[in-house]
Amino acid sequence: MTRGRFITVEGMEGVGKTTHVRAIGQRLADVGIEVVHTREPGGTPLAEEIRELLVSPRDEAVDAHAETLLVFAARAQHVAAVIEPALRAGKWVLCDRFTDSTFAYQCGGRGVNEAFVEALAGAVHGHCWPDITFFLDAPVEVALGRIGERARDRFEREDIAFFERVRSTFRQRARQQSRIVQIDASGAQERVDQALAKALDDFLHTAAKRP
Amino acid sequence: MTRGRFITVEGMEGVGKTTHVRAIGQRLADVGIEVVHTREPGGTPLAEEIRELLVSPRDEAVDAHAETLLVFAARAQHVAAVIEPALRAGKWVLCDRFTDSTFAYQCGGRGVNEAFVEALAGAVHGHCWPDITFFLDAPVEVALGRIGERARDRFEREDIAFFERVRSTFRQRARQQSRIVQIDASGAQERVDQALAKALDDFLHTAAKRP
Repeated sequence: MTRGRFITVEGMEGVGKTTHVRAIGQRLADVGIEVVHTREPGGTPLAEEIRELLVSPRDEAVDAHAETLLVFAARAQHVAAVIEPALRAGKWVLCDRFTDSTFAYQCGGRGVNEAFVEALAGAVHGHCWPDITFFLDAPVEVALGRIGERARDRFEREDIAFFERVRSTFRQRARQQSRIVQIDASGAQERVDQALAKALDDFLHTAAKRP
Repeated sequence: MTRGRFITVEGMEGVGKTTHVRAIGQRLADVGIEVVHTREPGGTPLAEEIRELLVSPRDEAVDAHAETLLVFAARAQHVAAVIEPALRAGKWVLCDRFTDSTFAYQCGGRGVNEAFVEALAGAVHGHCWPDITFFLDAPVEVALGRIGERARDRFEREDIAFFERVRSTFRQRARQQSRIVQIDASGAQERVDQALAKALDDFLHTAAKRP
């Protein structure tokens, strides 16, 4: 049984992740690839309960280490119960956010030590990193403008400076990690869609050649 | 301002921890020490919500790493929001369970790597370990016999072999760590109470001499 491929999509809220994840899933289905579509934090009943703890606005100031450990608790459950079993069964996994978001939000946004997150990632999924990551990038004001007036969760209530640090950390990781493909998501949706389709085609050609 | 002392009480369910924690708190109050009485997992609104996730029986098999990370997420919040501020304000903290329980339940009980827990403890509260720990020890059949027929949480539903590993890990740590005082909790409550009172008096004499 050939191990499946693990694809993640990253970026700030407001860059159109949900729409583009759906489009990527459709394209993979169109070429006959069985895809498990999931998200983080979440993806199992326990991990979705942890997500609720993370995103609900609350009066209590949340310690940055506590937040990071909650994210990795959800991730450990998700990898063990959903992602690894799917990949081992030869299915592809398409995940909305993964560990790059932890570097962006908890290290970039909150100032958590990168070595701490590296160590957690190694312990929780050292054997299981994405094969490719599409990072949808847009200026903070464009992305936040698209969120508009909907009820904002605990992260979406952060200030502009927080999101500038998040974006800058994503962009820095995209330069450092060859698996991350940065896509300009500031323009019209069909242009973003074309860029993503092209990058996905390139990956499918490479992936088809690998064992 | 003299930093307060941090006292923890450890042991399996059924050894009488709740009763004895209360007695220790009363003795400290009697000699005029201001004590913050708390528990783990828990001690803040967020940490108590995490406790609920941990102890509620559920259909989903919980990954041992996920469980350990949830425990430390609650602990990070508890240390940052309650324990450290109290100690810094010169108050004493009396806590029902702390990191020794993680070694006993997650390493001993579930087989989680001790180095992983050591690393998490170092990152989350490397600067904040108990000054003294009272470990109430009783044979598993005695302790479980006392739980009786009450509705059992996700941990209390484990089998005898699990609790034998938990007890044996507690006992091993008590031999290795000089801060841990092992108290025989298998006999009558007044005898356990006397032994605890004696150990607490010894500590108060030592603590009074330290800066």
